[in-house]
Amino acid sequence: MKHLPAILFFVSVLSAFLEAANQPNFVVIFVDDMGYADLGCYGHPTIATPNLDKMAMEGQRWTSFYVAACVCTPSRAGLLTGRLPIRNGMCSDRRRVLFPDSKGGLPASEITIARALKKQGYATTAIGKWHLGHLPKYLPTSHGFDNYFGVPYSNDMDRADKAPKGRDAFWEPKVEYWNVPLLQDKKELERPTNQHTLTRRYNEKAVKYIQSRKKDEPFFIYLAHNLPHIPLFRDKSFANHSRRGLYGDVIEEIDHGVGLILQALKKKELSDNTLVIFTSDNGPWLPFKTHGGSAGLLRDGKGSTWEGGMRVPGIFWWPGKIQPAVIREMGSTLDLFPTLINLAGGKVPADRTYDGWNLTQTLLNGKPSPRKEMYFYHGEQLYAVRNGSYKAHFQTKTSYVGQKQALQHEPPLLYHLEHDPGEQYEVQDKHPDIIQAINSLARKHKASIKATENQLDKR
Amino acid sequence: MKHLPAILFFVSVLSAFLEAANQPNFVVIFVDDMGYADLGCYGHPTIATPNLDKMAMEGQRWTSFYVAACVCTPSRAGLLTGRLPIRNGMCSDRRRVLFPDSKGGLPASEITIARALKKQGYATTAIGKWHLGHLPKYLPTSHGFDNYFGVPYSNDMDRADKAPKGRDAFWEPKVEYWNVPLLQDKKELERPTNQHTLTRRYNEKAVKYIQSRKKDEPFFIYLAHNLPHIPLFRDKSFANHSRRGLYGDVIEEIDHGVGLILQALKKKELSDNTLVIFTSDNGPWLPFKTHGGSAGLLRDGKGSTWEGGMRVPGIFWWPGKIQPAVIREMGSTLDLFPTLINLAGGKVPADRTYDGWNLTQTLLNGKPSPRKEMYFYHGEQLYAVRNGSYKAHFQTKTSYVGQKQALQHEPPLLYHLEHDPGEQYEVQDKHPDIIQAINSLARKHKASIKATENQLDKR
Repeated sequence: MKHLPAILFFVSVLSAFLEAANQPNFVVIFVDDMGYADLGCYGHPTIATPNLDKMAMEGQRWTSFYVAACVCTPSRAGLLTGRLPIRNGMCSDRRRVLFPDSKGGLPASEITIARALKKQGYATTAIGKWHLGHLPKYLPTSHGFDNYFGVPYSNDMDRADKAPKGRDAFWEPKVEYWNVPLLQDKKELERPTNQHTLTRRYNEKAVKYIQSRKKDEPFFIYLAHNLPHIPLFRDKSFANHSRRGLYGDVIEEIDHGVGLILQALKKKELSDNTLVIFTSDNGPWLPFKTHGGSAGLLRDGKGSTWEGGMRVPGIFWWPGKIQPAVIREMGSTLDLFPTLINLAGGKVPADRTYDGWNLTQTLLNGKPSPRKEMYFYHGEQLYAVRNGSYKAHFQTKTSYVGQKQALQHEPPLLYHLEHDPGEQYEVQDKHPDIIQAINSLARKHKASIKATENQLDKR
Repeated sequence: MKHLPAILFFVSVLSAFLEAANQPNFVVIFVDDMGYADLGCYGHPTIATPNLDKMAMEGQRWTSFYVAACVCTPSRAGLLTGRLPIRNGMCSDRRRVLFPDSKGGLPASEITIARALKKQGYATTAIGKWHLGHLPKYLPTSHGFDNYFGVPYSNDMDRADKAPKGRDAFWEPKVEYWNVPLLQDKKELERPTNQHTLTRRYNEKAVKYIQSRKKDEPFFIYLAHNLPHIPLFRDKSFANHSRRGLYGDVIEEIDHGVGLILQALKKKELSDNTLVIFTSDNGPWLPFKTHGGSAGLLRDGKGSTWEGGMRVPGIFWWPGKIQPAVIREMGSTLDLFPTLINLAGGKVPADRTYDGWNLTQTLLNGKPSPRKEMYFYHGEQLYAVRNGSYKAHFQTKTSYVGQKQALQHEPPLLYHLEHDPGEQYEVQDKHPDIIQAINSLARKHKASIKATENQLDKR
């Protein structure tokens, strides 16, 4: 047995090689403030999204897919780390997202999908909106991405003095109203960013990245569009493209980009080894009227923990691997971390608490989703918990202008989300047992949260 | 030229023969009180409708498809005659539909699709809910149908003394609570109708009818399900079939039936010569909570002239003939009369006013829909008019309990339905020209209405 060490070495090299050969590529397309009902395949009557509809038809369309938070920064932190933002200081009751004067960001101790995949041999790129800290130490290239091209926060920030005050700036937006920077890695390329061409340039970056890939190196593209967050901009080739007006033009340009990306994957013969995911960071921003999206039959929108604020489209595409279906069970952007790490052949780090579930068996083998619970945070407060079909609201706050204080509910408002997805008909009086079970889940969950430094309050 | 008469005779026989050989079959599946958002392909998250989703994908799914009225009787009169019910006495401000004590019905002078197709050589059958008069002279067999199997009015009528009062009867419905008759032609077969098996029996009738067809005789099936109108019933094989509860079970049984019908057509090798249409008679009956459906992002429901009351799913299927597409232009059940008569090689009668448009060129050749206007009646009152993208409401009345009187609007409330399908953001102040144009349309339309005997008030 004197050859045993050599044999073991050979086996380990071989298995690493085979693993690398099997490691799928990942493309996560994450849009901003798009509502549950803003795609054709989710029921919008006047927005045309043929590419996403086809992607949904060929893959899995999830109808109960949740984001990690009802606003931008914490939602993104949740997607990239697989952990609720309450665990890493990325949510706040004072400042709900990061602003240009913020000094905080995603802590270096956090592990993003990119950092984990990097360790598993992946090439990684971030394109688009970051919003997890714009100081150099927080930018994508400090968090596991090989490179970055994008606007580091929301496209309505850095408002110029010459811009009209209040919401008036948004109805007929001009590039010069917002002095937002466009970065290449950590370097400023352009300021103000020409937002008209932003979606187009993001799509082109993603396509070029795919075209330039080498066969033996798996990759991860995180393409986070700044749009359809207000102010709304689209390339001139999409002007008056949509029956839905400017908001529809923006969605239809994004849809077109999805088509280009899938086409590039096919042309490169990578589609049978690439998982593409499309979702949104939170529900529609309703106070912006026709410049905001629609949550369809779901209640309320962005900034609320009603379903319209946190349930979003979730489409998974991987021809030949994903079983085409409509999945009506729960999933979340929190689940992407464990799912992608697992599909890449890795293991979720054991040194911290995760809030995501590995969806691999549902995606590839049609098994029931492992996710049975969802926690709905408003800032640092747990407002609601879903357990199976039931959702209990301990507090509620609408995203509409007018309600200043959250309403407290004792007993919590209870809804059967499968019979009543619009959260219209309270059933708390009928189900004290279910309320008790959810109360117990909430207590257990809260006990798992450790105090941590708040990142959003720093300035 | 002495042979000319003989030649002409031969040509006319030949052309009739060729026409018959080309005459397509028609299956119209018309459900009751199903909302715009109650199918998977129109965005419902927990109702599974794989057969209708596939039918929509293979055919045309219309997203701006209207019924002729916001309640049952007038809506059905509109579909079958191609004329607004105000023209033939089939709507009323006193009694909104026909009841078991009604003495009126669709006048003998009206021409139904069945009667017109009969003249063109079709076999015709009516299966399901009629609700255009239950006295013998008004029944389907008096209106151009060869035979009839169904319940002649709504399944919540003829309430038995033993039934709980008010809405309590509906939450746990029992067959014996409603003494509704089931008819074969004009003969009572069963009373009370076993409503549990009603949807199943209707589907079976339709399938058997298809199976029994002879190749050389074109046919028209009018399959008007009594459900999902309350009280909700489904076959025991569909008990707990749906995540959406009882309402979902009912829709999923109807969806299953659609699958059986399309399968029967394929098996009989008729699918390339049969146009199948699926739609609903009005929006969801919202006061019935989870026993009513959902209009999704549309406003309000059954009984109102807001979009949720009158915009419904509209799916057209004819493999190899219909261009698969999502059609975002206007269509209406009023258009079925001229479209079907035209496809069968006939002409719309010239002796009366029609409110329908021939959709053939849109269905078969992808041309723009000829329908540019829609008139929204509440009883005998014209409440709203849509012209292109804009809809003006002269009066509004919600279907929710509480509002007793219609609200009058001068100027009318104006909405841009393509930018704002939810009718949330009034724009009347910005577009006096559009209001003027719609006012003029409304005046012209009203001038075309002639006084006629009211059928719904007779008892």
